[in-house]
Amino acid sequence: MTVEDVMNEREALCPRFEAAMKILGKRWTGLVIRVLLDGPARFSEMAARIPEMSDRMLAERLRELEVEGIVRRDVFPETPVRIEYRLTEKGRALAPVMDQVHAWADQWLLVPSGK
Amino acid sequence: MTVEDVMNEREALCPRFEAAMKILGKRWTGLVIRVLLDGPARFSEMAARIPEMSDRMLAERLRELEVEGIVRRDVFPETPVRIEYRLTEKGRALAPVMDQVHAWADQWLLVPSGK
Repeated sequence: MTVEDVMNEREALCPRFEAAMKILGKRWTGLVIRVLLDGPARFSEMAARIPEMSDRMLAERLRELEVEGIVRRDVFPETPVRIEYRLTEKGRALAPVMDQVHAWADQWLLVPSGK
Repeated sequence: MTVEDVMNEREALCPRFEAAMKILGKRWTGLVIRVLLDGPARFSEMAARIPEMSDRMLAERLRELEVEGIVRRDVFPETPVRIEYRLTEKGRALAPVMDQVHAWADQWLLVPSGK
């Protein structure tokens, strides 16, 4: 197997890239992460900032991101109990990804697609 | 409407970000773009570099990316006819996005998800 074979194989398979896109490519996920990049938030605060998203969908996305280790759910034993969502280090590391997607979208998706 | 309202609205809606993720989040799309970042390629060359992808799926993704203005299909009137796919300027502008996704995936998705 040559170096080129190895590189081709790595490129062909590249399961991590696909895994990343599978997480980030889901509808709403980008917005949820963006809201949390501004800091920890309660469920109701997040819901208010993404009004088009249903509570059920927000809960589902938060749960998925928690399973992926991107979001952490903190429960503060106050009265009433306070629950906050925040990005983990892995989640905060997505900031440059989000920035690049935005930069590209802002430059290239202003005109109708297909142009 | 305050400045904060405007910013919130922009963030809440942000249709371009969602549109970008909808394009890039599809299975195989990232790999197709990565192969073309190395230069123009014929269908059979691309198929050889992504062996797990069926020809039908490759044709479908190329067609979608062509409609999005990310890929261009050039037909050279030789004998036999030569057909090449290449990234447009809009497509080449995706390089930093791909790099960031890769950097994040390489750093954070080595361990099993959920970690």
